[in-house]
Amino acid sequence: MNNFDFYAPARILFGRGEENRIGQLLAPHAKKILLHYGGGSVKRSGLLDRVTASLKAAGVEYVELGGVKPNPRLSLVHEGIDLCRKENVELILAVGGGSVIDSAKAIAMGVYYDGDVWDMYEQGKGIDKALPVATILTIPAAGSESSGDTVITNEEKQLKLGYGNSHLRPLLSVMNPELFFTLPANQLANGVADMMSHVFERYFTNTTHTDLTDGLCETVLRTLMKNALIAKDDMTNYDAWAELGFSGTVAHNGLVGMGRDQDWGCHNMEHELSAIYDVAHGAGLAVLTPGWMEYVYKDNVPMFVQFAVNVMGVSGSYRDPDAIVMEGIRRLREFFRKMGLPGTLAELGIGEDRLEEMAKKCTGAAFGSEHPVGGLKKLYWQDVLNIYKLVK
Amino acid sequence: MNNFDFYAPARILFGRGEENRIGQLLAPHAKKILLHYGGGSVKRSGLLDRVTASLKAAGVEYVELGGVKPNPRLSLVHEGIDLCRKENVELILAVGGGSVIDSAKAIAMGVYYDGDVWDMYEQGKGIDKALPVATILTIPAAGSESSGDTVITNEEKQLKLGYGNSHLRPLLSVMNPELFFTLPANQLANGVADMMSHVFERYFTNTTHTDLTDGLCETVLRTLMKNALIAKDDMTNYDAWAELGFSGTVAHNGLVGMGRDQDWGCHNMEHELSAIYDVAHGAGLAVLTPGWMEYVYKDNVPMFVQFAVNVMGVSGSYRDPDAIVMEGIRRLREFFRKMGLPGTLAELGIGEDRLEEMAKKCTGAAFGSEHPVGGLKKLYWQDVLNIYKLVK
Repeated sequence: MNNFDFYAPARILFGRGEENRIGQLLAPHAKKILLHYGGGSVKRSGLLDRVTASLKAAGVEYVELGGVKPNPRLSLVHEGIDLCRKENVELILAVGGGSVIDSAKAIAMGVYYDGDVWDMYEQGKGIDKALPVATILTIPAAGSESSGDTVITNEEKQLKLGYGNSHLRPLLSVMNPELFFTLPANQLANGVADMMSHVFERYFTNTTHTDLTDGLCETVLRTLMKNALIAKDDMTNYDAWAELGFSGTVAHNGLVGMGRDQDWGCHNMEHELSAIYDVAHGAGLAVLTPGWMEYVYKDNVPMFVQFAVNVMGVSGSYRDPDAIVMEGIRRLREFFRKMGLPGTLAELGIGEDRLEEMAKKCTGAAFGSEHPVGGLKKLYWQDVLNIYKLVK
Repeated sequence: MNNFDFYAPARILFGRGEENRIGQLLAPHAKKILLHYGGGSVKRSGLLDRVTASLKAAGVEYVELGGVKPNPRLSLVHEGIDLCRKENVELILAVGGGSVIDSAKAIAMGVYYDGDVWDMYEQGKGIDKALPVATILTIPAAGSESSGDTVITNEEKQLKLGYGNSHLRPLLSVMNPELFFTLPANQLANGVADMMSHVFERYFTNTTHTDLTDGLCETVLRTLMKNALIAKDDMTNYDAWAELGFSGTVAHNGLVGMGRDQDWGCHNMEHELSAIYDVAHGAGLAVLTPGWMEYVYKDNVPMFVQFAVNVMGVSGSYRDPDAIVMEGIRRLREFFRKMGLPGTLAELGIGEDRLEEMAKKCTGAAFGSEHPVGGLKKLYWQDVLNIYKLVK
């Protein structure tokens, strides 16, 4: 086990009706807030009305900024920063999924920065403060409700970059599984693929003596797969959504990756897809992950045997580690397929013409200084290209 | 799954050498601290010297209060409160195990309270602030390094009572498994029994649809048992102690009990033993827990079958749920026995003469108003007495 520093201070308020007390939860922290959200669904569902009613009842003033899109855009972040400064906003309440929360975090740190907040993403600059962010989660997927991470797309540069800092961990997050009942089936599937990937990126490691976190990762993965299949056939199943929502937070609050080298190769490879093609992050991950497994598993066969046995339930008389691993990967593909997720880049509408360009951007080779991605196996741009081709 | 409110802000700094930067970790938070510890072992091992050197190097002033005993005493807490007030202490650093940390928490809230801090324990009074507490853990057991809980013994009244409040959650906790190498074998065993009990108290529940936390509980229990046996035979095995230490924190930071009714019957029954007989908490739990299981399992057979199968590895052709449960309990007793833990009250030096007195104190019947303990099965004083007799 490696040394580690674990800090996950976000308070999680979980369950039926919790969003209706958002006003009283925020009142001790701010007189005036920015209410940040995406499209029309939070209006149509009546959620926004209930939130604003709760804010008013608690005497919390608010200004609104809607319009966050999936793969949230830098241009709207700039708008939010200006608005917060002009209105002396003290806290940002993100009502939505990971895109809205990530956009809120970008605004939260941008308010205190004189330059362009894109500098943080591109240059990894440190920050020493940010506005507090609270969230009401409407899509279990990104884990942004407990993490200090944010991913923003610079639409001019066609770059999608992440940034992480403990100052960006939300103050509190409300999670009511009932808010997930109206999600379309593809958002369930994409979210599950994203949450599973957050665990995979931490699980697959060359670090040894990691019994506890191995087990935590495996439990989260099994819980996600079991309940995803239940929710798929019964989209208003509270218990299934509760398991998915809670698992999504545990998947990404840091705990299950403590003391282990982490990977993040698939996330890096996927960001290139969604930066150019604007595909759903989870769908991109569902395509890439099994291909990545096939490409890298020989570097640590025992780790992938453990995955096949403990997570995918492979058992029996194989007498052949490679066969066990391949059966595990086959079952993962089968699960993604059952969830209605794509299996190839072609199904995502991605042709072969820009694969090399994306591979070179992924490792930085396109910009003249290559830094391999991935942890279990270091991936250079040729490796990334090989994986893209494996799943074309 | 029940609604829940999860908040575990304690930062955990884990691994080799982490204690040597305690000064720089605390300097941003306090100019002057109380250095609180127990007996001579932290002096003999050189730990206290390294801590004070780090504090001095970082310019953090300190006053010392040693002498905390297992089952920490209210009288020393009073002394600590006076000292903190007189010296204008801004933070308490507990160097030790759960007893030292619990004592530090009592002092931390007592400083701001005009009456006797025992009121909190006896009357459950709320608090709105406390001095920040930091810890350097020397015994993985109580989980107090991440919890908001404290247990204090009032030696005059022969009462041992607990209190919990989120203001008492440590600011940060340092955990270096190397500091556990010199523990005597019985402290390893007692600590493991205590950590397992923290999971058991959350695991055994009548709440349904708790896939994620069921799995988290089971993983922590399996990790504890596996690594306890390794450490028992190899007391300087870093990896085994690392798993035990990390598991102890996860067992008690709240996570594994979220969304489920909890039990705490065994803890309540054990507190009566250690209040009168001053036995080690973990040893008392090791005696009581299997007896409690036998006494209550018929109220929720499927829960105990799950325990026997998923935690104790019972499999095969039993065709009889009771037999599966009894085999699970037998294996748990066997594990405790292998660890050198006692199996009966007699082995703890506890006779039968005061069992009824303890049972009646446990539920409050002795004080004229009975509140049954336990969650999976409500236990009245007669039940508690039955369980005491079952393990006499």
